[in-house]
Amino acid sequence: MVPVESKFRTLGIDHAPGQEIRQQSNDLNAVTRGFPLEGSLVDFSHGDVDAFAPPPGSFKHFSEAVDAGGRQAYTEYRGSAEIRADLARHLSAFTAAPIDPDLGVIITPGTQGALFLAVASTVGTGDKVAIVQPDYFANRKLVEFFDGEIIPVKLDYLANESEAGLDLAQLRNAFEAGARTFLFSNPNNPTGAVYSAYEITQITGLAKEFGVTIIADQLYSRLQYADVTYTHIRAIGRVDHNQVLTIMGPSKTESLSGYRLGVAFGSTSIIERMEKLQAIVSLRAAGYNQAVLKTWFQEPVGWMEERIRAHEAIRDTLIAIFRSAGMQTRLPQAGSYLFPTLPELDVGLSDFVKLLRAQANVIVTPGTEFGPHDRSVRLNFSQDHASALAAAERIVIMARRYAK
Amino acid sequence: MVPVESKFRTLGIDHAPGQEIRQQSNDLNAVTRGFPLEGSLVDFSHGDVDAFAPPPGSFKHFSEAVDAGGRQAYTEYRGSAEIRADLARHLSAFTAAPIDPDLGVIITPGTQGALFLAVASTVGTGDKVAIVQPDYFANRKLVEFFDGEIIPVKLDYLANESEAGLDLAQLRNAFEAGARTFLFSNPNNPTGAVYSAYEITQITGLAKEFGVTIIADQLYSRLQYADVTYTHIRAIGRVDHNQVLTIMGPSKTESLSGYRLGVAFGSTSIIERMEKLQAIVSLRAAGYNQAVLKTWFQEPVGWMEERIRAHEAIRDTLIAIFRSAGMQTRLPQAGSYLFPTLPELDVGLSDFVKLLRAQANVIVTPGTEFGPHDRSVRLNFSQDHASALAAAERIVIMARRYAK
Repeated sequence: MVPVESKFRTLGIDHAPGQEIRQQSNDLNAVTRGFPLEGSLVDFSHGDVDAFAPPPGSFKHFSEAVDAGGRQAYTEYRGSAEIRADLARHLSAFTAAPIDPDLGVIITPGTQGALFLAVASTVGTGDKVAIVQPDYFANRKLVEFFDGEIIPVKLDYLANESEAGLDLAQLRNAFEAGARTFLFSNPNNPTGAVYSAYEITQITGLAKEFGVTIIADQLYSRLQYADVTYTHIRAIGRVDHNQVLTIMGPSKTESLSGYRLGVAFGSTSIIERMEKLQAIVSLRAAGYNQAVLKTWFQEPVGWMEERIRAHEAIRDTLIAIFRSAGMQTRLPQAGSYLFPTLPELDVGLSDFVKLLRAQANVIVTPGTEFGPHDRSVRLNFSQDHASALAAAERIVIMARRYAK
Repeated sequence: MVPVESKFRTLGIDHAPGQEIRQQSNDLNAVTRGFPLEGSLVDFSHGDVDAFAPPPGSFKHFSEAVDAGGRQAYTEYRGSAEIRADLARHLSAFTAAPIDPDLGVIITPGTQGALFLAVASTVGTGDKVAIVQPDYFANRKLVEFFDGEIIPVKLDYLANESEAGLDLAQLRNAFEAGARTFLFSNPNNPTGAVYSAYEITQITGLAKEFGVTIIADQLYSRLQYADVTYTHIRAIGRVDHNQVLTIMGPSKTESLSGYRLGVAFGSTSIIERMEKLQAIVSLRAAGYNQAVLKTWFQEPVGWMEERIRAHEAIRDTLIAIFRSAGMQTRLPQAGSYLFPTLPELDVGLSDFVKLLRAQANVIVTPGTEFGPHDRSVRLNFSQDHASALAAAERIVIMARRYAK
C-alpha cells in the first residue's frame, strides 16, 4: 500500500456525527433483544436547527451580500476587512482582551476549518501535542493527520463540578515530555465541563514556563448556564499573545451551521500561516456567507438569554432522567452536550449505538470517538424539549435492556 | 525556527489573485515613468460577477434550502445524496463516462477545496508528481505543502493552436523518473489552451503504462469557443476508472464563486479518502450553498451559448490588441484566461504588475505564479467588454513605457 493510503486508514469517519447513514448495516439480529420502541427520530449527533432557529436577520444579510455581488464574493482569503473589523470589536469585548482587526482575525469555513488550519499551522511531523481526554474527536485526528504525536491529558469530569477536572500534573508531564502545543475545548466537548479560573491560570502558567502554544476551541462559550464563571484563556495575559489562538463560531448556539462560518483570533503569527494555507485549502469562507456574521453578537435584546433558558431547561430534564436511572452524568456548565455513563452492557458500545438507532429511533455519538470512553455516549441536547425527553427515556430503557 | 514554520515560508500568497490589497507598498518612485493613465479599475485577477451574473434561480435554490432547515444544513460530508445523484447524471452526460452517484461524487468548498483534498489524498512525503508549466499556481503549492516532489513538464502553448503543446517526451521521462500522479488543468490555466484528442490519448496511454493517477482540473471546460474539440480524459477509458479524478465547479463560467462550490468525480477510492479528510478540514461544503448546484447544467435554453458568445467577443478584442502591439498571446480555445507575453522590460515583473495597479488602475496576476514565466501576465477576461478593452490598451501603453 502506498504510504499516503495507509495514512487514510486510520482516519475513520464511520462513527462521526452525521455519517451514520453510511454505516454498513452489519447483522445485529444475533444480539438484538426485545421489540422496537415507539417514538419519532431524535438525532442527538448534532443540534436541531429546526427546533432552535438562527437569529433574525441572518438570511437578510446573506441576501444583501448576493446583491452586493463581486465585492462580497471575492474577499481577501482571511475574509472581508469590514466584517473582520466588526468581529474584532465584538470578540475582544466578549473575551476581555484586545484583537488586531487587520492581523488578528481570520474567517474560516466553520470552526472545523479554523481548527484544521490552526493545527496545520502549528504541528509538523513528530511534534508533540497535549490533548485532553475526553475532547472533540477531530483534535486527535488532526494531530495524527499531520504526523504529530499525541500526549493525552486526563479530564476527571465526574469528580467535582466546580472545575473541569484537568489533571494538571499530567499536563506538566506532557510539557516536560516536549509537547509545545496544547489543544483543548472550553466548555469541554463532549462533557460540557467548564474550566475554572484556577485551572485556566494554571494552564497559562505552565504554557508560559514551557513556551507552549495554546489553541482554545471556545465554540460553545456563549451558551453559559446560571452561576458559571467562564474564564477566557486569552484574557489571563500571562502568555505571549502570539501563543494563544482562540476559535469560535456561530454554528452551534446560533444555529448557523448551514452557512459554515468560523473565526480564529489572537495570535497574528499563527493567523498569517492559516491564511496562507486557506489560500490552497478553500480560498476563503464562502463570500456571501461571511455577511451572516453581521448578526453575530448583535442578536436582539433577550434573544441569547431565552436560548440559554430553553437549553438549561432541557439540560435539567435530561440530567434528571439519566441520574435517576443511575447513569453518572456530568452537569454541563455551558454548551449543549451531555455525556452520560452507561451501565456495563452485554454488547459492545458500537453495537449498542446501532441498536439505539434501529430499535429506539435515537442517534447518539459513541464515547470512543472522544478517547478511550467505551461506557459513554454523547448527546447534543439542542433539540425540541419534548422529543429530547422521550428519546432520553428510550435510551434508559435500552441501557437496562442490554445491561449485564 | 520550528520546522512547521519554515514550511510556511515557501507558501507565499502575496501575489495571489485577490490578495493585492495586502502587499506592502514598497517604494516604486525610483522606477516610475510618466503619469497615471485615466480609466476605471479593472481587476483581471478574477472574473467580474457583476458583469456576468449567475444563472437565474441560484439564489432561489439557496433560499429554499434555508427554509428546508436541518435536513439541508447537515448533509453527509460528501454532500447531499439527492444533489449528488443529480450531479452524477449531468456530469456523466457532459463527460461521456458513467459516474456512481453514491460513491463517485463529492461536493467540496469550491474547486480549490476539491484540488486540496485530491492532492492530500494522493501525494505523501517524497512522492513525485508531474506538473505542467505553466499551470494553476496552487498545484505546485499543494504538492509542496504535502512534501511531494514536483517534476515539471513543459507546455509549449505558443507553438500550435490545434493542440495544447504538452511535451510528451518530458511526460514520459517524468513517469519513468517515478511520478505516480499527474495533475493538470484542461483548458490550461493560465493560457486557455485545450489539449487535443491526440494529447489526451497519449496521456492516458502513458498513465496506463506506468500506473499513474490523473487529477484533471476541468473547471473551465464548459466555456468552449467555436470549432474547439474538447476531449474529456475520463471518457478515453484506457486507464482504470479508479485512477482518474475530474474536478469541476460553477465558480467561473457560471459566476457562482461567492457560494464556494466544487465537485470531484470519478475514482471512488480517491473520493473515499477525500471525504475522510473533508470531515476534519471543513466538514462539508456549506449545506445551504450545496442547493445552488441544482441550477448547474440546467440553465435556461440559450444561457450558456450567450455566455460563450459574449466571452468569445471579448477574447477576440483583447487578442487583437495584444497581437497588434507585438505581444505574443495564445488564442484561448476555452475558459476566460489570457496569458500575453510582455516585451523585455527595464523593471522586474513584480514591479511592473504593481506599476500597472498604481498607474493604470489594472490588476493582473504575474506569470511567475504559474511557473518560471517572468515575461507574462494572466488576465481573467470575464469582464465588462468596454472596460476590458480600455484596460488592455492601458497594459499595452504601460508595456511600451517600461520596455527596454
